[in-house]
Amino acid sequence: MKTQFDFTDFDHGAAPGIEHDELINLPGGNAPTKVTCIDYSPGNVSIQEIDDLGDFVARHRPEWSVVRWISVVGLSDMTAVHALATKYDLHPLAIEDVLNGRQRPKVESYGGEESEFLARLLIVARILRIQDGNLLHGQLSIFLGHNTVLTFQNDSGDLWNPVLQRIKSKGSRLRDNDASFLAYSLLDTVIDGSFPILENFSDRAEELETLILERSHPKILGDVHRLKRGLLLLHWVTWPMREVVQTLQRDPHECMSDTARVYLRDLYDHVVQIIDIVETYREIASDLTETYMSSVSNRMNEIMKVLTLIGTIFIPLTFLAGVYGMNFRYIPELDLHWAYPAFWMICTLLIAVMLLYFRRRNWL
Amino acid sequence: MKTQFDFTDFDHGAAPGIEHDELINLPGGNAPTKVTCIDYSPGNVSIQEIDDLGDFVARHRPEWSVVRWISVVGLSDMTAVHALATKYDLHPLAIEDVLNGRQRPKVESYGGEESEFLARLLIVARILRIQDGNLLHGQLSIFLGHNTVLTFQNDSGDLWNPVLQRIKSKGSRLRDNDASFLAYSLLDTVIDGSFPILENFSDRAEELETLILERSHPKILGDVHRLKRGLLLLHWVTWPMREVVQTLQRDPHECMSDTARVYLRDLYDHVVQIIDIVETYREIASDLTETYMSSVSNRMNEIMKVLTLIGTIFIPLTFLAGVYGMNFRYIPELDLHWAYPAFWMICTLLIAVMLLYFRRRNWL
Amino acid sequence: MKTQFDFTDFDHGAAPGIEHDELINLPGGNAPTKVTCIDYSPGNVSIQEIDDLGDFVARHRPEWSVVRWISVVGLSDMTAVHALATKYDLHPLAIEDVLNGRQRPKVESYGGEESEFLARLLIVARILRIQDGNLLHGQLSIFLGHNTVLTFQNDSGDLWNPVLQRIKSKGSRLRDNDASFLAYSLLDTVIDGSFPILENFSDRAEELETLILERSHPKILGDVHRLKRGLLLLHWVTWPMREVVQTLQRDPHECMSDTARVYLRDLYDHVVQIIDIVETYREIASDLTETYMSSVSNRMNEIMKVLTLIGTIFIPLTFLAGVYGMNFRYIPELDLHWAYPAFWMICTLLIAVMLLYFRRRNWL
Amino acid sequence: MKTQFDFTDFDHGAAPGIEHDELINLPGGNAPTKVTCIDYSPGNVSIQEIDDLGDFVARHRPEWSVVRWISVVGLSDMTAVHALATKYDLHPLAIEDVLNGRQRPKVESYGGEESEFLARLLIVARILRIQDGNLLHGQLSIFLGHNTVLTFQNDSGDLWNPVLQRIKSKGSRLRDNDASFLAYSLLDTVIDGSFPILENFSDRAEELETLILERSHPKILGDVHRLKRGLLLLHWVTWPMREVVQTLQRDPHECMSDTARVYLRDLYDHVVQIIDIVETYREIASDLTETYMSSVSNRMNEIMKVLTLIGTIFIPLTFLAGVYGMNFRYIPELDLHWAYPAFWMICTLLIAVMLLYFRRRNWL
Amino acid sequence: MKTQFDFTDFDHGAAPGIEHDELINLPGGNAPTKVTCIDYSPGNVSIQEIDDLGDFVARHRPEWSVVRWISVVGLSDMTAVHALATKYDLHPLAIEDVLNGRQRPKVESYGGEESEFLARLLIVARILRIQDGNLLHGQLSIFLGHNTVLTFQNDSGDLWNPVLQRIKSKGSRLRDNDASFLAYSLLDTVIDGSFPILENFSDRAEELETLILERSHPKILGDVHRLKRGLLLLHWVTWPMREVVQTLQRDPHECMSDTARVYLRDLYDHVVQIIDIVETYREIASDLTETYMSSVSNRMNEIMKVLTLIGTIFIPLTFLAGVYGMNFRYIPELDLHWAYPAFWMICTLLIAVMLLYFRRRNWL
Repeated sequence: MKTQFDFTDFDHGAAPGIEHDELINLPGGNAPTKVTCIDYSPGNVSIQEIDDLGDFVARHRPEWSVVRWISVVGLSDMTAVHALATKYDLHPLAIEDVLNGRQRPKVESYGGEESEFLARLLIVARILRIQDGNLLHGQLSIFLGHNTVLTFQNDSGDLWNPVLQRIKSKGSRLRDNDASFLAYSLLDTVIDGSFPILENFSDRAEELETLILERSHPKILGDVHRLKRGLLLLHWVTWPMREVVQTLQRDPHECMSDTARVYLRDLYDHVVQIIDIVETYREIASDLTETYMSSVSNRMNEIMKVLTLIGTIFIPLTFLAGVYGMNFRYIPELDLHWAYPAFWMICTLLIAVMLLYFRRRNWL
Repeated sequence: MKTQFDFTDFDHGAAPGIEHDELINLPGGNAPTKVTCIDYSPGNVSIQEIDDLGDFVARHRPEWSVVRWISVVGLSDMTAVHALATKYDLHPLAIEDVLNGRQRPKVESYGGEESEFLARLLIVARILRIQDGNLLHGQLSIFLGHNTVLTFQNDSGDLWNPVLQRIKSKGSRLRDNDASFLAYSLLDTVIDGSFPILENFSDRAEELETLILERSHPKILGDVHRLKRGLLLLHWVTWPMREVVQTLQRDPHECMSDTARVYLRDLYDHVVQIIDIVETYREIASDLTETYMSSVSNRMNEIMKVLTLIGTIFIPLTFLAGVYGMNFRYIPELDLHWAYPAFWMICTLLIAVMLLYFRRRNWL
Repeated sequence: MKTQFDFTDFDHGAAPGIEHDELINLPGGNAPTKVTCIDYSPGNVSIQEIDDLGDFVARHRPEWSVVRWISVVGLSDMTAVHALATKYDLHPLAIEDVLNGRQRPKVESYGGEESEFLARLLIVARILRIQDGNLLHGQLSIFLGHNTVLTFQNDSGDLWNPVLQRIKSKGSRLRDNDASFLAYSLLDTVIDGSFPILENFSDRAEELETLILERSHPKILGDVHRLKRGLLLLHWVTWPMREVVQTLQRDPHECMSDTARVYLRDLYDHVVQIIDIVETYREIASDLTETYMSSVSNRMNEIMKVLTLIGTIFIPLTFLAGVYGMNFRYIPELDLHWAYPAFWMICTLLIAVMLLYFRRRNWL
Repeated sequence: MKTQFDFTDFDHGAAPGIEHDELINLPGGNAPTKVTCIDYSPGNVSIQEIDDLGDFVARHRPEWSVVRWISVVGLSDMTAVHALATKYDLHPLAIEDVLNGRQRPKVESYGGEESEFLARLLIVARILRIQDGNLLHGQLSIFLGHNTVLTFQNDSGDLWNPVLQRIKSKGSRLRDNDASFLAYSLLDTVIDGSFPILENFSDRAEELETLILERSHPKILGDVHRLKRGLLLLHWVTWPMREVVQTLQRDPHECMSDTARVYLRDLYDHVVQIIDIVETYREIASDLTETYMSSVSNRMNEIMKVLTLIGTIFIPLTFLAGVYGMNFRYIPELDLHWAYPAFWMICTLLIAVMLLYFRRRNWL
Repeated sequence: MKTQFDFTDFDHGAAPGIEHDELINLPGGNAPTKVTCIDYSPGNVSIQEIDDLGDFVARHRPEWSVVRWISVVGLSDMTAVHALATKYDLHPLAIEDVLNGRQRPKVESYGGEESEFLARLLIVARILRIQDGNLLHGQLSIFLGHNTVLTFQNDSGDLWNPVLQRIKSKGSRLRDNDASFLAYSLLDTVIDGSFPILENFSDRAEELETLILERSHPKILGDVHRLKRGLLLLHWVTWPMREVVQTLQRDPHECMSDTARVYLRDLYDHVVQIIDIVETYREIASDLTETYMSSVSNRMNEIMKVLTLIGTIFIPLTFLAGVYGMNFRYIPELDLHWAYPAFWMICTLLIAVMLLYFRRRNWL
């Protein structure tokens, strides 16, 4: 089997540039592989967990099944992946992309070969999730055939609960449509999953701004940078997604129904909206650093003002006091009766003049 | 009815990135729904508020009506929206866009299906308004058919008063033209509404610049940032608007008359002009932050100069005074008669030298 | 007449974003309207100021006139504008553009309708002028027909003196060519008018750089910002001008002769050259702000160095002097004969060590 | 021979802009030239080092050889290069590109001339390698014919070991395919070689960020700049590489098999991924400088706070002490019994007030 | 003659934006005009300086001359320019471009008119040269006909020595080719002349970086800005050059042979390489300013640290000394025998504590 897919040839090991901090890949590389097979038609639904994949691959698909969705969660069990790849005649390069796990979102068409099914369309998307304040991202690979959808992902499949709900509820739009509409629904779920993340970012940005105007601490700047990197990751994930959805929506493809294409136009609007928001937040985050810098400068200014005020007032006075502390034998003022009160008067006068000067220069 | 439109499937909840501060959406989500029906022809006008929508939907349109405009203000009453959607056979995705309320400006064509009316063109625009110093924005959805226009919005409909005025005045260009000209007039009203906002921003920018050159306060920087965000919102609203108008003007569409298309060219000029101004103001706002920063630096410089001046002059003198305040038994100078005046002379000399030095270094 | 042009419908009042400072529109909104009619052919020239426009509009054009140029300077007299608009059958939207006065440069073609003349091409350009150190800009609207040119502008018409000179001198290229060549010549005059402005800016930039390296004053930064805004205005005026000239040169138009098109290619080169220079100056102006900032920092550094020098040397010495000024009964040093000279020696030594240290750290 | 290739005509000596620091070209200009000839077919392999090139050129190629790869490592021996150039009829400009050594990545087609072999495709790529912390880069020139591949490079050929391994192992995909697949494999090896470099950069960036938050030293900034330049070099190398792969993949070429083209699509994905990562890192590196600057500002703030605290507290107190150190004859307080403890109490009080004030301003 | 070319009509006087500093135009406006005529064929060469242009224009060209190159150096003698313009029937606008001297690089085709020769292609390039540390630039105008090349330039013609050398040497590629190959060779010489300039800039950048890390002086920043402007000029000169070469290479033209076109592809690579390097250096120069700024900040930090150290240690001690210098009658400590040594111990202790504190905060 190995020779056939020849993975070792292509050990790319690409490290996406953004996770050197908190942005850890979704766990699951060592999660157990769970294969679920969902068959449905407007009238029937069957959801089964596959334990014995060999047996499953050998069996025939029920007659009534209009759409078959095989969801593979956890990619540690290579034999399962290979069994499915052989069964559905997937292209070796496509399998590589699935296992690589760090692929950019893209859509690729492997047409032409006249096999029974052959998933002719591979859509790679990235799933985002916030966990314990960290932004995690994983890869979702969708193979689309005429009436079959295969999905591969590392992450736990909780994401799909609403989709499964709709499949189960009779008469829902998803249930009545074909495989390409399922693919659309999966992408829609993934993309709409960005909105809560953006709201989280919005809250963080607001919080940071309030903090910055209150005090300046290097930790805050660290938080701003973390925010920036999160946005960079979102940017990195969403821009190619736009191309993907646009390609799916615009270029006619045998596996993509007209209904799905109309809905993809709507999805495209969402992606563009997310991109707009991400870029807006990136500008806002940039402004945050700027605000931080000028807030630090402002505080420095305040500090220096106080020092200057105190210094400018008392340094000359200290000199004066020093003068009359000198031990010269002949200092005529020393013997004057009114010298001491005069000294205090001069001091008071000097202070008053200084304060006036500062007020005029707007330092008080 | 709900199954038919199936809204729950598409609960996107997109939070546009800019309102986390003062930029609140236009209120109206809970405003009562007010439906107004305006029929007009070159010869006749009839404006009626619809209370019983069921009855209205059942009735026929008068024979003489060349253009019918149904304006829905306030989207809280879902049954009203659905009644109209059913009557005019609107696409479910379009209805979603209407209710979403956070849509980017766009134009979408839902053609092909051979229904009686079917608004074949959906134009989404955003209404901007300044209220109590805050920039509010809401969504306007325009459905355009052959001789019917439907508008949905959350905001109060005062905006349309000048348009209604022109509809009422016999012989006006609007009255003599078709539905697409009405759609143009509505868009024109929305877009030209940006000009007073830009003037408001211009005044604010000027004010801030004057303030910045006078004093540096973190509050001012906050104001600059608020200005920047307002411009970001305008940018976010106007750029896609350009595409919308361009598409409407360039791509021929069955519902769009030649006259309207010529006027849309003019509208396009306005949008481009607004974009130009917005981008210009964004550069100016960027410069404001820069000015703020260097104004802070300048002030710091001033402050430090004063401290340095005072310090540099008096610290050495204080040392000298300290020297002759020492209690060593054998300090020959102490007994000299002219020592005290000499001390003062030396001090004066030192001060003069210092001041000269500072003047030469351009610090005074 | 008003109903026919229906101006009130389109009161846009766009405020271009750049004049909130010194960049005032060219005056002339209330200047008296002066209409001049120039007829010329290779053999004949006639220049007449029109006082009675009603009479003029009724009269026929002389047989020999190859090109007729009607120049309207000052747009306060609406009836004059309307009389010409009616006579030459101008499109209402075009008239609006003329009166708006804040139009972006553009070219628009109003073809198709089979009227006698109908200026089929409207070219809007902006005239720039420096007056008392302020950059003023006004609008020039050129209507081009087969053998007629109409120009509308607010500014005084001194600008056209060289053009008139060439019309008057027999055998000049302008005199021997058609109306489109006149339109080209007018545009050429307007565009080449930017070069002296750029030279003025170049001088200002040079001056400012010298000033910045000498002293740092907020006023200088204000001047830099004024320069930047002037360049922003030029940018705003010149970029769309490029499109205008390119469109005129590339798209064939019935009113545009081949000769004029060849010369427009040359004009296009000039516009591109101006754009290049403007962008270059904008980079230089950006660098000026940067230089200002670092020049301020440098000066601050200088100042702090002096304070630190003085402080670091004298503060410890003052402490020492203070020590021997203490009134403790038992300070053995006080009674030593050589204590005072020793004190001075220690001071001198300390100063020398300090200076050496500073020199080694490159602070002197 | 010299006349034929006429190199002296084209002595360009282009210095790529990035190596003025540590980014030295790969050594090898004076390395001895080593020519290796690899012949293979699905059934056979022969690898021979060529010592006597004259003899080799004269000999015929074995019948069974499907692909012949001649690898030239070290370009000091001009006669070897010329011998091969003559044998395979390479275009003089192509030879120049090979020897120039500082060529941008590009693909060029020299078709049309009906010679026996003529490498019709020249692909220039750049090899990157990190050695002793320095990023080195060298040029790889690949000539592709119908069943022959020629490679020229300066660097040692260790890079190709995995490729050779695959050629030697029977049944590998490389062994079973044609010359264009070999060319693809070479490019793939070169491009995937960037991933470990990117990981190295990622580690460096992380390290630098930790350092910056700890202390600020000019050396760190130097390291950031070195990182930036490395990324600039990667940017400079990868962007044109994208074009190269895209051209190879998209434009059909007689020498490029369909299989290779499919794999090139995969390679294209890798290049785009690398570009994405490089751009991301460049943004991160930019942020590092920013962090450095604000970290310096923060530290300055800390320092100034301490000085201000000490100064503001003790300067007034020193003045007070100075006052009672004056030698005026008539200072009533001096004789009071409780004056000294009162002085200390006043001092304590003043200090307490100051500290309270500082706490309220958030300086402590 | 003047009427025919009518220069006065087009006195543009464009000042390219970059020379307001050291970037002076190449001298030569008042240099004497030197006309050289070079005729060559594979077999023959004749180089003659033309003194009597009238006579030369009247004479016939030798039969054997395959390529005639007339090089005009120095444009002060207008009659010479006009004589050649008449002889070769050059377009008046082209002549203007030649004399203008500040033209952007461009290529223009004046085809169609069926004259004997008519240089149908005008190529304008800019010659760069470093003289006394200043970057000078001048204009080169090349007219290309079927077998004739005319060049006009202000600068001394030393530049062409290598080209002339190759023309003189029998069998060189240049000698065996046609006029378009000569034009290519001239452009190649001009473009490759940028490489030594770039190396000079590279050295300057390296030097500046070393200086910046050593000391901060405004003069250094001035040098960085000069470097930046030089790069701006190169940018300004090279970008349009790319278009020029691309146009020449891509668009077939009757005067451009296939051979020359192949070589132009190579030239295009060089231009792109120069652009790459220029852009890279511009980034590096931007980084230099940044480094300067943070190096200044760092130094300020160092300085402030020293002041703070000294101040924080000695200001409290001075206060203490001041306390015991007070003349209160009842200060119990003054009479204690061990008070003075105790004072010193306290001082030492305080200093030790301070130093420890500073060390813990990483200030030492």
